[in-house]
Amino acid sequence: MNHPLAAEPRPSVLAAPAPAHVFDWLDETAAMRAEAGLTRTLRSRGADDAVLDLAGNDYLGLTRHPVVARAAADAALRWGGGSTGSRLVTGTTALHSELEEELAEFCGVEAALVFSSGYTANLAALTALTDPDTLIVSDAYNHASLIDGCRLSRADVHRAPHSDPAAVAEVLAGRAQRRALVVTDSVFSVDGDAAPLPALSQAVRAHGAALLVDDAHGLGVLGPGGTGALAAAGLAGQPDTVATATLSKSLGSQGGVVLGPRRVIRHLTETARTFIFDTGLAPAAAGAALAALRLLRAEPARAERAREVARTLARQLAAAGLHACEPQAAVVSVRAPGPEAAVAWAADCRRAGLAVGCFRPPSVPDGISRLRLTARGDLTDGQIAEAVRIVAELAPVGARG
Amino acid sequence: MNHPLAAEPRPSVLAAPAPAHVFDWLDETAAMRAEAGLTRTLRSRGADDAVLDLAGNDYLGLTRHPVVARAAADAALRWGGGSTGSRLVTGTTALHSELEEELAEFCGVEAALVFSSGYTANLAALTALTDPDTLIVSDAYNHASLIDGCRLSRADVHRAPHSDPAAVAEVLAGRAQRRALVVTDSVFSVDGDAAPLPALSQAVRAHGAALLVDDAHGLGVLGPGGTGALAAAGLAGQPDTVATATLSKSLGSQGGVVLGPRRVIRHLTETARTFIFDTGLAPAAAGAALAALRLLRAEPARAERAREVARTLARQLAAAGLHACEPQAAVVSVRAPGPEAAVAWAADCRRAGLAVGCFRPPSVPDGISRLRLTARGDLTDGQIAEAVRIVAELAPVGARG
Ligand SMILES: Cc1ncc(COP(=O)(O)O)c(C=O)c1O
Ligand SMILES: Cc1ncc(COP(=O)(O)O)c(C=O)c1O
Repeated sequence: MNHPLAAEPRPSVLAAPAPAHVFDWLDETAAMRAEAGLTRTLRSRGADDAVLDLAGNDYLGLTRHPVVARAAADAALRWGGGSTGSRLVTGTTALHSELEEELAEFCGVEAALVFSSGYTANLAALTALTDPDTLIVSDAYNHASLIDGCRLSRADVHRAPHSDPAAVAEVLAGRAQRRALVVTDSVFSVDGDAAPLPALSQAVRAHGAALLVDDAHGLGVLGPGGTGALAAAGLAGQPDTVATATLSKSLGSQGGVVLGPRRVIRHLTETARTFIFDTGLAPAAAGAALAALRLLRAEPARAERAREVARTLARQLAAAGLHACEPQAAVVSVRAPGPEAAVAWAADCRRAGLAVGCFRPPSVPDGISRLRLTARGDLTDGQIAEAVRIVAELAPVGARG
Repeated sequence: MNHPLAAEPRPSVLAAPAPAHVFDWLDETAAMRAEAGLTRTLRSRGADDAVLDLAGNDYLGLTRHPVVARAAADAALRWGGGSTGSRLVTGTTALHSELEEELAEFCGVEAALVFSSGYTANLAALTALTDPDTLIVSDAYNHASLIDGCRLSRADVHRAPHSDPAAVAEVLAGRAQRRALVVTDSVFSVDGDAAPLPALSQAVRAHGAALLVDDAHGLGVLGPGGTGALAAAGLAGQPDTVATATLSKSLGSQGGVVLGPRRVIRHLTETARTFIFDTGLAPAAAGAALAALRLLRAEPARAERAREVARTLARQLAAAGLHACEPQAAVVSVRAPGPEAAVAWAADCRRAGLAVGCFRPPSVPDGISRLRLTARGDLTDGQIAEAVRIVAELAPVGARG
C-alpha cells in the first residue's frame, strides 16, 4: 500500500455521448401530476415578509424569539458552523450533551439522544428497536418518516386502522413473531387528532409488546407545561415506552430526539445507522433548541396557551360555518371541497396576507384536502380574529356544505 | 365535525403494570458487542479542547473560520433558530434559494436542491429516481445512506464488486428492467479511494442507464477549485448524471444537496418523501454553507491544499513504515492489526493530543480496521509532522507487518 504521489483525477474524454433521454420519464410523471392538479412548487420567503404565518410549525412562536436566535448565534460563534463529524467521532459537543440531559429531564425519561432531524430519529428508532422476528403495528395515518422507518426495518409490518386500539390488540394477540412494537404519531399531522395512548399502552402491555410514540406535534404543546404526549398519558418514564420528537416545531430549531429508557438510548447510540453514519446536529441548532426548552420551562403556560389558541380558532371557524376539526393540540384543519379548491383557497388567503398550510393527496391518508392552520401560542386575539375572517371570507363554494 | 371545547388529555390509570423485560434483548446484544470489543460510547468535546483534530471531516478547516461562524450567527439572528416547516410550506427562505443557485453554478449543473442532511438527500435521490422497473447497481463499499436508499426504493438492487466498471457494465447489459441507475461514492469514506467515474459513465452510457454519485468527500476537495468529482471527471452538467453531497464536510456546516439536471431537481422537489415530509434546513446552517462556498470560490487553492496535505501525510506515514493508503482526496487511512488494536491506538493518540478516526467492523466493508486521518487543508507543516510523529510512535505491534 505504500505509494508515490497520487495523481489528481483529470477530466477525461468519454466514449459515448450523454443520452438526453434517460430522465424523460420524470417529465412524463410531472405532466401527469400537473393534469391532476398536484404540481408542487417552491416559493422562498423573505425575512421581513408582512404575512401572518399560520402555516409553519412554530407552535410556541419561539423560532424568532430573540433569546432563541441569540442562543443559535452564540453557539455558532463558539463552536463553528457545523459539528464536523458523526456524533460518535467529533460531532458531540458539550452543547449536545447538555441538550440531551435537559430534554430527558423535561420529558421525564431516563435518557435522550439527539439526531440531525426528526426524520432520521424515526428511522433510527424503527430500525434499531426491531429485528426480523418483530411485528410492527403501525397506524394507517402515521407520518411518512415512520412509514419509511417501517420499510427500512427488517420486521413484519402490519398497517392498523387509524386510532383503533382494539384492532391493535387483536393483531398483537394473533402474532407469531417473538417481539412486537406498536408505533403511532401522538398527534396526527393533518387533522391534529390525538392518538388513544392510554388504550394503546394497555394493549401493548397485555401482549408484551413495546410502544413507540412520535411526539413531533405533542412536545411543547401537550402534557403539563408542554412535557409531551407521554406525560399527558401518564406514560413518561415507563420501561416499555419510547418517544421520538423533532426540535423543529415547538422548540423552534432543527433536529430530532429519541426519548426513553437508558438501555434503548444506548442501543441506538451503538447501532442506529442514521445516528452512526450521519453528521451530528449543527451547534447553532442545538443551542437554539436548548434555549427554547429553557424558555418553556421558565414559562410553562406557553403550552396551554397554544392549545387555547387552537380551541379558539376552531370554535370561530366553526361559527363561520366551516368544517374545522376538534383540535387536540395546536393544529386546526379545515375541510376543502377538493384539491384544486384547497390550493386556490390557500393562495387567496396568501394574497390577503395570511399563510396557511394546504394538505392534499398524496399527503392526506383519507384523500380529503384541507387547509391546515397552526395555532401559534404567541398569536394575539386580534390576529386570531383576522385569520378567521380571511379564511371564512375566501372559503370556496362547497366548503360549508 | 363542529364541536365544543376539546378537553385536555389527562394522565390515566393504566390497567396492566409496565413489564420491565420487553427491552431485555437490547442488553443481550450490548453484551455481545462488548465481548467482541465493539462497544461504542459518546464522548463530548469542549469548545476549547487542546487537541489536534484529524478526526472530523472539516476538510478545508472552514467550520470555525470566523467568516463562516459569523454567517451562521447572522442568519440565525435574521431568520430565527429554525426554518419552521417543510421546504414546500414555510421552510424555504431566500437564503435557501441563494445557496441552491450558488451550489448549482459552482458545481456546473443546472439546479440544486438542499436537504436537512446528506443522508436524507441520498434517500431522496435513490427513492425518487427509481421505480419498481429499475435496476440499481450499487458499489459494495457505498455509504450507509446509499445502502438505506436502495432498501427504501422499490427497485431491484444489485451489489456490484468495489470499483469494478466492467462488472457494472455486465450487469447493466444483462438486465431485464426498463431503467437502471448506477450508484457510487465518489471518494469512499473509509480508505479515501476514488471511484472510476469516467469508466462508470461509459458503462452507463453504453447501456442507457443513469449515474448517481455521492460526492460527500469530493465536493470542495476534488476538481478545479474544489468543484467536485463530477467536474474532475468531466461529467458536470451531463444530462444522465446526478450528484449528491453533504454541506457538513468541506462546507463546514450541516445539510445535504442533490445536484443535477433541472428535471431531476423538479422531480425531487415534487415527490421525494425526505424532502416533502422533513423540516427545511435551519437558516444558520444554510448561511454557514453559503459563506464557506464563497470563501472557497474566492480562494480556490484551498482544495488543492487539502489534497497536498493528504499526500504529504500519507508519504510521511509510509516513510515511518505504516500502511497508509494512497490518498485521492483528503482522507488518509492507516491499517491497524485488528479492531482492539485500532481502538487502543486511537485512544493513545488522543491522550497524546491528537484526535484521529477509528474505523472497524461493521463500519468497514472489508473487515479491516483502520485509523482514519483527515488531511485538513489548514494544517501547517508542523502540525502534519506532529501528527505523523504521534501516530508512528504509538503504532501497535503488527501495524508495520
Ligand atoms: C409527525 C412527524 N414526525 C416527524 C417529522 C419529521 O421531523 P423533522 O422535520 O425534524 O425531520 C415531522 C415533520 O416534519 C412530523 O410531522
Ligand atoms: C459518503 C457519505 N455520504 C453521505 C453522508 C451523510 O451526510 P450527512 O452527514 O450530511 O447526513 C456521509 C457522512 O456523513 C458520507 O460520508
